[in-house]
Amino acid sequence: MGTLINRAWKLVARPQGTFKPEDFQWTEEPVPDLAEGQVLVRVVFLSLDPTNRGWANATATYLPPIPLGSVMRGFGLGQVEASRHPAIDVGDYVQGMLGWQAYSVVDGAAVTRFERQPGVPLEAYPAVFSFIGATAYFGLIDIGRPKEGETIVVSGAAGAVGSLVGQIGKILGCRVVGLAGSDEKCRWLTGELGFDAAINYKREPVLRRLRQHCPNGIDVYFENVGGEILDAVLALINERARIALCGLISQYNEGVPPPGPRFFGNVLIKRARIEGFIILDYAARFPEAFAALGQWMAQGRLRYRTDIVEGLEQAPVAINRLFDGANTGKLLIRISSD
Amino acid sequence: MGTLINRAWKLVARPQGTFKPEDFQWTEEPVPDLAEGQVLVRVVFLSLDPTNRGWANATATYLPPIPLGSVMRGFGLGQVEASRHPAIDVGDYVQGMLGWQAYSVVDGAAVTRFERQPGVPLEAYPAVFSFIGATAYFGLIDIGRPKEGETIVVSGAAGAVGSLVGQIGKILGCRVVGLAGSDEKCRWLTGELGFDAAINYKREPVLRRLRQHCPNGIDVYFENVGGEILDAVLALINERARIALCGLISQYNEGVPPPGPRFFGNVLIKRARIEGFIILDYAARFPEAFAALGQWMAQGRLRYRTDIVEGLEQAPVAINRLFDGANTGKLLIRISSD
Repeated sequence: MGTLINRAWKLVARPQGTFKPEDFQWTEEPVPDLAEGQVLVRVVFLSLDPTNRGWANATATYLPPIPLGSVMRGFGLGQVEASRHPAIDVGDYVQGMLGWQAYSVVDGAAVTRFERQPGVPLEAYPAVFSFIGATAYFGLIDIGRPKEGETIVVSGAAGAVGSLVGQIGKILGCRVVGLAGSDEKCRWLTGELGFDAAINYKREPVLRRLRQHCPNGIDVYFENVGGEILDAVLALINERARIALCGLISQYNEGVPPPGPRFFGNVLIKRARIEGFIILDYAARFPEAFAALGQWMAQGRLRYRTDIVEGLEQAPVAINRLFDGANTGKLLIRISSD
Repeated sequence: MGTLINRAWKLVARPQGTFKPEDFQWTEEPVPDLAEGQVLVRVVFLSLDPTNRGWANATATYLPPIPLGSVMRGFGLGQVEASRHPAIDVGDYVQGMLGWQAYSVVDGAAVTRFERQPGVPLEAYPAVFSFIGATAYFGLIDIGRPKEGETIVVSGAAGAVGSLVGQIGKILGCRVVGLAGSDEKCRWLTGELGFDAAINYKREPVLRRLRQHCPNGIDVYFENVGGEILDAVLALINERARIALCGLISQYNEGVPPPGPRFFGNVLIKRARIEGFIILDYAARFPEAFAALGQWMAQGRLRYRTDIVEGLEQAPVAINRLFDGANTGKLLIRISSD
């Protein structure tokens, strides 16, 4: 096994603004031998996610900063090629923090084994049956607590999480309005995914359109982006509104935190609740989310889209698709074939 | 009764910035006859509160705007002089929205009767056994949910609500740090009220002092002021912190809402919760708060201070004591003797 050569992207500089190729270094090094309890995973899909940007900073987020000179952290899915963990066998599929690399040597306890279901393509797992689907499910249901007939607004609606949030909202009997960055994305939301309305925030007056599309005000806001959209939503929240704070992607590339929402005072006046959540806290309950999502998908009520970029080499450039509006659905890097 | 002359301040202009005397008009008009169900109350204490400022704006808050030309809205305490309500008798003491006037004709159902307890001065009722004490009690306990040993920070700590919040926090076994606007206020908090520390936000570096006085971080923040103090607190919140959003007094005199907190992103990272509340929603549970507050007061564990200004004439000027730092404890206008 010492002769197997790994390919990996190491983080070698703290990014200023967006990720730049020179923040990473390509390395080819032998895969280390397995210690007791470890597994060797051939990575099939690397998941690129907005939260990766925060991890690269020098200051801790909900995880410690990635040490400079180590493999860039990232979620991924792969197949086990060797195992010294009693509950994981060669050939098993696993998901977990596999990193930006072709082969990952990790503790078996740190990854999640899963059974491939017939008729479900492998890419559905990182796109839905992962922290992505769990984020949409628990963020909307546990934090947002929508009731039938209420109005849900979701930003980043054409993203991996946002597109699921809106569909779950429709399944729960709510009015759903999404915000996305292109007319094409908006057409996908209202056409294929069944959103009641979609707003192209780059082209349309957000506050005015929200007012039009939310005639009964806003009860639940699933927040992925922050900034001006949050402000427009706060201006229109109903009493007892709930804001599930999942992401603030508009701010991740800012050096200094930008000022928060001007209409913050409405949280007081409307007795609203803003609550941040980190999906890692829900790990023990993922099966509950996956069961519901799987059933809805089997019923044809839940769709997803993937944006697959071929080759680990592309990761440092491809990740910016999350921030420049190029991406729709789940952004994945295919590193090897399944 | 038609010969009884009322004295009242009517709101005649929407204030720009702080209240100005010319926003009000002094009137002397006959008290109207009572309709069925109404009572005539001789107002003893008018309560001046930061929230009054928002009520005077043209836009609705949690209550509709005060119509120009009508008596300025305000909480108060008084004694019933005539009653056409079956459950309220002449001589009863009541609290409610009595307005800036010497006599108030209101629906009996809109005021709350209370029994004076022996040894409790009348001013303790508007200062503690009113929406003030209820705000401190439910805001801290229901929204803040402090656990023994946790660290509570309260802003506006020398105000009517803040001073009770900190004392309740101590009774619950928490570390309590208050922010106030003068050294004298800070000495009162740590000396007489038992706060663990107090910070003069006008003179001291807030973030650095908070870091010193909260070595284990901040678990609960009871927010009365907003602005830079909120930002400093957000920088130091622990995971699962709770922020009870009671007031944003630093912003009430601003024409345009100022930007919100820069460290808003910490709400996400720390899985924190910001929740606005309006004490009117808790009206049915006030007796629960008053029972606890009364017991603590009888045990000598809860103190309050009043800042009493004599004469209804003073109200338009006195109210600015809430905003310019002159006020400590509950600001009241004494309109008649009890």
